[in-house]
Amino acid sequence: MTIIATTARERMLLAKDAARGIGLLRDAAKHDALVAIAAAIEAAAPEIIAANRDDLERGRATGLSEALQDRLRLDAPRVLALAAAVRDIADLPDPVGRVLDRRTLANGVELTKVSVPFGVVGSIYEARPNVTVDIAALAFRSGNAVVLRGGSAAERTNAALVRAMRGALAEQGIDPEAIQTVDDFGREGARELMQARGIVDVLVPRGSAQLIETVLTESLVPVIETGAGVVHILLDESAPLDWAQDIVVNAKVQRPSVCNSVETVLVHRAAATRLIPAVAGALIADGVTVHGDETVVALVPDAVPATDEDWATEYLSLDVAMKVVDDLDEALDHIRRYSTHHTESIITKDAANADRFLAEVDSAVVMTNASTRFTDGAEFGFGAEVGISTQKLHARGPMGLSELTSTKWLARGDGQVRT
Amino acid sequence: MTIIATTARERMLLAKDAARGIGLLRDAAKHDALVAIAAAIEAAAPEIIAANRDDLERGRATGLSEALQDRLRLDAPRVLALAAAVRDIADLPDPVGRVLDRRTLANGVELTKVSVPFGVVGSIYEARPNVTVDIAALAFRSGNAVVLRGGSAAERTNAALVRAMRGALAEQGIDPEAIQTVDDFGREGARELMQARGIVDVLVPRGSAQLIETVLTESLVPVIETGAGVVHILLDESAPLDWAQDIVVNAKVQRPSVCNSVETVLVHRAAATRLIPAVAGALIADGVTVHGDETVVALVPDAVPATDEDWATEYLSLDVAMKVVDDLDEALDHIRRYSTHHTESIITKDAANADRFLAEVDSAVVMTNASTRFTDGAEFGFGAEVGISTQKLHARGPMGLSELTSTKWLARGDGQVRT
Repeated sequence: MTIIATTARERMLLAKDAARGIGLLRDAAKHDALVAIAAAIEAAAPEIIAANRDDLERGRATGLSEALQDRLRLDAPRVLALAAAVRDIADLPDPVGRVLDRRTLANGVELTKVSVPFGVVGSIYEARPNVTVDIAALAFRSGNAVVLRGGSAAERTNAALVRAMRGALAEQGIDPEAIQTVDDFGREGARELMQARGIVDVLVPRGSAQLIETVLTESLVPVIETGAGVVHILLDESAPLDWAQDIVVNAKVQRPSVCNSVETVLVHRAAATRLIPAVAGALIADGVTVHGDETVVALVPDAVPATDEDWATEYLSLDVAMKVVDDLDEALDHIRRYSTHHTESIITKDAANADRFLAEVDSAVVMTNASTRFTDGAEFGFGAEVGISTQKLHARGPMGLSELTSTKWLARGDGQVRT
Repeated sequence: MTIIATTARERMLLAKDAARGIGLLRDAAKHDALVAIAAAIEAAAPEIIAANRDDLERGRATGLSEALQDRLRLDAPRVLALAAAVRDIADLPDPVGRVLDRRTLANGVELTKVSVPFGVVGSIYEARPNVTVDIAALAFRSGNAVVLRGGSAAERTNAALVRAMRGALAEQGIDPEAIQTVDDFGREGARELMQARGIVDVLVPRGSAQLIETVLTESLVPVIETGAGVVHILLDESAPLDWAQDIVVNAKVQRPSVCNSVETVLVHRAAATRLIPAVAGALIADGVTVHGDETVVALVPDAVPATDEDWATEYLSLDVAMKVVDDLDEALDHIRRYSTHHTESIITKDAANADRFLAEVDSAVVMTNASTRFTDGAEFGFGAEVGISTQKLHARGPMGLSELTSTKWLARGDGQVRT
């Protein structure tokens, strides 16, 4: 399917128009269309990989870092993985049409609150082609049209992916305008997308803190903030050493580049000598640089001194900040000051402290005695993840398909008027 | 309680700080504090009325219209009504701490999703002192601190009301900083409130379409849009005359100044001669001006010709637009083009048309055979109404106390790590 609309706004209006039909599709039709999209992506693998090779070449020529090139790269196994992810999304239960509330008024009017698609979901993200397919499939599964704006370094790859997905929709007799990209309009496309209040119903930025900040500042379309994670673990006075060590190492080392990995470990002063040498030692043995306050540095010869900046840093690397606190109150103060409200965990055997931590920490996910790495849509059993919301409006924490729906009240009467 | 913070930002930070304690208050404490607030408002009635007299005098001197003066006016019965409304809010069930989801992961981690207060709720509204009390009480009942910015014409009245409410909190041993106003900072106060992302969690504008548009455009704080209502009723081919007449008259005449009153009546062409003379006649008998298309004007001698502008107008007065449509599709097209997505109703005996209308109209409340005036928090049984949301994010339609809450996931483990 060739895209013929000549402005970003025209494309978005086509998406809005297509959204009407998509929103009325039944579960089976959406399932089958996604299976067709998966097959189309597999069939288009040679084109997709060739387009990706062009993007990579351009990236190398313009000095794209090795890490970003790796995120951009699509080889045959990765294309197959994209298609498999679409099939997984196809198999998820339909989030549309659920009855969320039901009440009959005294006058006999029947009210039903049902889940409905948003309409048009927009996404602005970086040069990760997997996000193109992921967001398009999640939006479609929840009955929404989608307008995509990926990083310019992936422009050709995204165009090939969007072409394959739109072709599959058309073959299924579904309006292909439901999947749109504004990549080819450059920054102007992103700007128009952020201005499209009334056309695009919600905008989900995915990527760096800077990208998200830009979208939050500039968008007139309501945004779901999927934010950074300056994630804390507090080792309370009663923390068992094995739990403390296992959880901190898991939360830091298993996948340091993701938002649910721990960035700051706070340790109760009364447990400092018991816990810090062992926990920091285990981290260092796994290649982690420990940025410690004075007490930590005194206990751990290989730690490096932390500066104030460390407490506010989302390293996303094999680095961790470690600080001793006098008590739970100081820990809560520190978290209040530096947390990005993503995930925090306390390791403790003290039920009262656990309860206070759960009640008083104001984050999307608050844990006792578990690794912060569990903050994840798949781990939570959602089957897919749109992102992890760090805002309080509409969605908070890992977002599944149901977070891509709104609601509508249906009122059925037989002539009632208000008295 | 005197307000001592010297900048709008300082006051908002005090509110954020107070929100921590307010958010942990138990149901009974919130109930009792609101009862105390109601009593304090009654006790302060002489001061409040005197302050209001000053505002009214200033209003008259600066040419405030009679209608706006009436909205601004507080006399003894109106002050008692404000206090009574606070007692009603006190009696509502606590929306905080409800368990919304619960799941146990295979590894034994227990997840609980609970409702929590937003933290700080902001509101920007016009010179209606009742909104000051209403929003403060609703925010407090749902465990939130509040930052108020009312119309400058009500500044002294609002100051007296806020003083009474803060005094009552202090007497109850509750941090009075939970109720703040930034009225005395003028436009700068409103601007700072809209910029206070990270301090204020959600902003609810209430008032004219222009006020809401300004907040939507300028706010960096997430907004819940409580929008205008260009509300439609469609009289389908099979509409019974008595239902059509009763519902249209009720929806227009009972209280024309509110957002759920009907503004445009669409009539199926096949029912035009049967319905229009009677329905329009009944409206005209009640003092309504009917702005009709050619067919309507031909059938109703007292109707005035409508212009294109009429279809997009929220009259909020004894005016109604009336137009003939060829079929359901044309009606749906018209609604799609002109509706503000508040409320629409179809009057019909045709089940298939009713179902299509319910499914395809994209509004907060979609009705069959009922008056649009039912779109109201009290009518829906919410016991109170924060506003009627016309956006799709977070809340849609009449908002009760639970729409002033967010959620938090609590995860309880005993040493689990991610594998």
